[in-house]
Amino acid sequence: MKPKVMILLGSASDYNIAEKALDILEQLKIPYDLRVASAHRTHEKVKKIVLESTRQGVEVFIGIAGLSAHLPGIIAANTHRPVVGVPVDVKVGGLDALFASSQMPFPAPVATVGVDRGENGALLAAQIIGITDEEVRKRFSQLRESFYSKVERDENQLLNNMG
Amino acid sequence: MKPKVMILLGSASDYNIAEKALDILEQLKIPYDLRVASAHRTHEKVKKIVLESTRQGVEVFIGIAGLSAHLPGIIAANTHRPVVGVPVDVKVGGLDALFASSQMPFPAPVATVGVDRGENGALLAAQIIGITDEEVRKRFSQLRESFYSKVERDENQLLNNMG
Amino acid sequence: MKPKVMILLGSASDYNIAEKALDILEQLKIPYDLRVASAHRTHEKVKKIVLESTRQGVEVFIGIAGLSAHLPGIIAANTHRPVVGVPVDVKVGGLDALFASSQMPFPAPVATVGVDRGENGALLAAQIIGITDEEVRKRFSQLRESFYSKVERDENQLLNNMG
Amino acid sequence: MKPKVMILLGSASDYNIAEKALDILEQLKIPYDLRVASAHRTHEKVKKIVLESTRQGVEVFIGIAGLSAHLPGIIAANTHRPVVGVPVDVKVGGLDALFASSQMPFPAPVATVGVDRGENGALLAAQIIGITDEEVRKRFSQLRESFYSKVERDENQLLNNMG
Amino acid sequence: MKPKVMILLGSASDYNIAEKALDILEQLKIPYDLRVASAHRTHEKVKKIVLESTRQGVEVFIGIAGLSAHLPGIIAANTHRPVVGVPVDVKVGGLDALFASSQMPFPAPVATVGVDRGENGALLAAQIIGITDEEVRKRFSQLRESFYSKVERDENQLLNNMG
Amino acid sequence: MKPKVMILLGSASDYNIAEKALDILEQLKIPYDLRVASAHRTHEKVKKIVLESTRQGVEVFIGIAGLSAHLPGIIAANTHRPVVGVPVDVKVGGLDALFASSQMPFPAPVATVGVDRGENGALLAAQIIGITDEEVRKRFSQLRESFYSKVERDENQLLNNMG
Amino acid sequence: MKPKVMILLGSASDYNIAEKALDILEQLKIPYDLRVASAHRTHEKVKKIVLESTRQGVEVFIGIAGLSAHLPGIIAANTHRPVVGVPVDVKVGGLDALFASSQMPFPAPVATVGVDRGENGALLAAQIIGITDEEVRKRFSQLRESFYSKVERDENQLLNNMG
Amino acid sequence: MKPKVMILLGSASDYNIAEKALDILEQLKIPYDLRVASAHRTHEKVKKIVLESTRQGVEVFIGIAGLSAHLPGIIAANTHRPVVGVPVDVKVGGLDALFASSQMPFPAPVATVGVDRGENGALLAAQIIGITDEEVRKRFSQLRESFYSKVERDENQLLNNMG
Repeated sequence: MKPKVMILLGSASDYNIAEKALDILEQLKIPYDLRVASAHRTHEKVKKIVLESTRQGVEVFIGIAGLSAHLPGIIAANTHRPVVGVPVDVKVGGLDALFASSQMPFPAPVATVGVDRGENGALLAAQIIGITDEEVRKRFSQLRESFYSKVERDENQLLNNMG
Repeated sequence: MKPKVMILLGSASDYNIAEKALDILEQLKIPYDLRVASAHRTHEKVKKIVLESTRQGVEVFIGIAGLSAHLPGIIAANTHRPVVGVPVDVKVGGLDALFASSQMPFPAPVATVGVDRGENGALLAAQIIGITDEEVRKRFSQLRESFYSKVERDENQLLNNMG
Repeated sequence: MKPKVMILLGSASDYNIAEKALDILEQLKIPYDLRVASAHRTHEKVKKIVLESTRQGVEVFIGIAGLSAHLPGIIAANTHRPVVGVPVDVKVGGLDALFASSQMPFPAPVATVGVDRGENGALLAAQIIGITDEEVRKRFSQLRESFYSKVERDENQLLNNMG
Repeated sequence: MKPKVMILLGSASDYNIAEKALDILEQLKIPYDLRVASAHRTHEKVKKIVLESTRQGVEVFIGIAGLSAHLPGIIAANTHRPVVGVPVDVKVGGLDALFASSQMPFPAPVATVGVDRGENGALLAAQIIGITDEEVRKRFSQLRESFYSKVERDENQLLNNMG
Repeated sequence: MKPKVMILLGSASDYNIAEKALDILEQLKIPYDLRVASAHRTHEKVKKIVLESTRQGVEVFIGIAGLSAHLPGIIAANTHRPVVGVPVDVKVGGLDALFASSQMPFPAPVATVGVDRGENGALLAAQIIGITDEEVRKRFSQLRESFYSKVERDENQLLNNMG
Repeated sequence: MKPKVMILLGSASDYNIAEKALDILEQLKIPYDLRVASAHRTHEKVKKIVLESTRQGVEVFIGIAGLSAHLPGIIAANTHRPVVGVPVDVKVGGLDALFASSQMPFPAPVATVGVDRGENGALLAAQIIGITDEEVRKRFSQLRESFYSKVERDENQLLNNMG
Repeated sequence: MKPKVMILLGSASDYNIAEKALDILEQLKIPYDLRVASAHRTHEKVKKIVLESTRQGVEVFIGIAGLSAHLPGIIAANTHRPVVGVPVDVKVGGLDALFASSQMPFPAPVATVGVDRGENGALLAAQIIGITDEEVRKRFSQLRESFYSKVERDENQLLNNMG
Repeated sequence: MKPKVMILLGSASDYNIAEKALDILEQLKIPYDLRVASAHRTHEKVKKIVLESTRQGVEVFIGIAGLSAHLPGIIAANTHRPVVGVPVDVKVGGLDALFASSQMPFPAPVATVGVDRGENGALLAAQIIGITDEEVRKRFSQLRESFYSKVERDENQLLNNMG
């Protein structure tokens, strides 16, 4: 099935953050692809992946990277598709990656979510895809509902334990 | 014409940042609406605007706010549409608003752009809308191209002046 | 017994911070209630709890939350009662939650205490309640005195150990 | 008329922030007193004011100070009344004063509001006083309503100007 | 022997930082005393200790405290003797305590050393005492020399290991 | 004359910082070239300039950029020559650009100098070139000497004025 | 008259901060000397001044510098006298200079005061000198008293103006 | 063989960061020397090493240090050779050392790499040496290529595992 989301990792060591994103995409049945290709190390590869993915109909990119985290910005420079940035905390509390992703100049915005929040990156991608894909939108709403139910259950369990 | 983007300002004093967004949306001929309705001050109004706008087909929301900037998060809590957050620098260099927008918990991401970057907020909305709207996508690409040309002209002028 | 303090947690995972507050409220014999209801996830529930609690005579709210910690602000938007905010350290040293709680705009202040300081949140609530409840005020003063005594004992033990 | 709020300034140079508080207290017809008495410079005076004010029925203290802003903490050490802290931005974006007020140890919390937010400090005091003073509570609600109306008017004017 | 340095801890839990100071003072044979008396919790005690110590000839005070760390400032407000502040890292990387100690307003400076650097606090006290106490000055210089020798030995060992 | 230093600006608006670098390079008679070509906006151009410049013998690159300042990193990804990064203060005190330049991952270091320090960027380039170019090294030492003399003169003038 | 305090400026441009120190020293009649000699630019000169001054009986050094502010540390490395550091705000809010001065490693502490607080640097020097110089100690106490009186007068004027 | 790179550690405890640099230099067959000599503790030694090394043909210095990390700056003050700074994270996330190295004033730049990035410090040195040493340049390119291959292999392994 043709991927709608392309996830790019700056390094294989960012995979634990990516996993949170994959888990959400699978729950929402959004086809995705994942590649490892840091902005600085394998720049041509990033570009090639982005151009090909864009041509083949990928609708949203997710760039996951730490440190000076240029990856989401490089993706944004090579596509007209929206790019989601997930900053990873490696040093200085992840502020470096948060700034690198959010503080992009005109005209190459990156849709930045919270430090280490792979799951929110995937949800944002789902919301974007859901604009035209009603099935995804429904599943997104269900997932949100089921999460709310879980919060309720957590609360009940907590209150019971407090007793 | 039915708005595709709904811009919400936390305060009328954020209008100078909103203007940068409006300018881009007009260049890209994306119909939009704008309202002022801070998260804490007029919460019911925010919710009503968001629910109605979602029903009426708004595809992307942009929340522009400073300080503890809850506005984009409140929008996100009331719609399945993607929400773009533009943090405004009022105090502490805008870090408060940047955190308030980006550090949202699961499952309510906000697509955060840079501090005071209204124009990037609008571009991100355009990229999202452009997934299905080919005209917008073309105009987005043209705008980007024309910006690149402007960078070239700026460079030429600079080099001439140095020359 | 009718609760005078309503504690709201953004997530069940914030319970370890809440426990410090509960311990103080029990020492001071201040009736309280506790609920889990994050600002973004179950917004209607927050509002309903806040409105009902306000009607039923809750005098102070305590919102405990991490990340972009909108919970105390949402409570403040729905009541005329004072709201205490306890920022929880999840990322960036808790600065995100500290800003989210303290940097609230006019006219929705949140009485912010230190990062992870559930016990200070409860003490502040006790001081507020103590304005009219002389028994609470006395117990507050006793608790403070007994803490001072403990500091003395800690000192004596330390000086003894030092020899 | 006996003051219900005692405002202490760390320095006469903090008066511009205090003015925002006074303006609110006057609108809400809450009797107040104001003194200048920095924590470090005139410590005995602070203590004396706090003890006397507490005896004479002051219900809430507001400490307004910049830099290492110990004033609110010193007040808190000398009364069982709730103390509101307003950090003033003098250096490092006001972070020093924000930390000094919020990061108070057990058992001396300070109810900290945003950097330079004298008006929110006064509102918080009003909410606390409003627990038993129905007139203040009503005026607080009216002030909040009238502010919401002003936001509406600002919005209308803005939308009219935009055409 | 009459103490020349009085060390005050904000809390018994700061003792691990104080130990580094005690170790230096003992090496330099500077008589000292140590007390636990937080600024906010037992203010009268702090003041009494400071006044008495000043009268009895203490030449330098060292205040060791974390969080909003007012202790060194309170000491400074009650003596004409120099006060050394050692910020302790409890939250936000110790920035709160570093600001609380260094950013003191006129005319109550605190001689602030690095976060958790009890040993440097003691050295600074020794330098001050050494202005008139030639024996201390000599031991200070010897300690510094022996430390340099240790750096040399560490280097030699390292180079040998690399060898 | 063949340029030994290639300066790339992220935007024509960074020219005021570049000027400080040009002034130094001219004093040191190091031939240079300057181009405007932001990392994200005109990526192919950056790459082309970097590849060509590297082939033609440019020895050091200087990338001057603000915000999420990817420019120096992009240059580093396309050459084996050392790349100097000059962060420009646009928002958040220039911390975003400082991190973007310094926190580069392996194996693409950027030699980062201080925020807005175009002159130090040029000096660093001169030191690198001076390894093989004795004339540059001499002029570098002379410039440093003449700066020291200026510090002396400034001091004399200051002392005279105080006198 | 033989100087008891030696003030070193990192740059003539720091003189406006130094002036605050000079004003205090003159009020306290403490003989001082002032030199301009940045740590990196004229290192030998710094060392020579420090060694000679130490020999000639200077009791306290004050190093005033911005940016990576090594000056106070270099002084500390060359004397057994206490060294006061005054960080100057040039970039990033002066945090760079505050860290450079306070975060010194063992065994070279710098007694750091607040950002741009030349007057507190001088007061700290006076407190140190006052340990043996009773005249200085008296004048220090008078200055502090007269400042307290000024705070009183400021308060009275403020209260009169408020009416 | 005559060293081309001189590595100076501020303390033997920084050796774990230095090891990353040594590993790279050995892979690139660049002769180096390593010494431990903190800026403040053994200043004369630093200077002597730097002057001698410069005379003997060392082309690049690497200073590795934490806290107020003056070491790279002191090296820079004593040579016309380029100096690379590697900030080490000891406190406050390494921001103190990052600032101390990058925020150097004119005319003593330090080529700062990321916090704890010894390997990038060595790579930068290699790039500088590679300007004239073609063998080093080749090995640098090979190392970079082999790293890219490793990223590819990591990716393949990751994708297989996900498979």
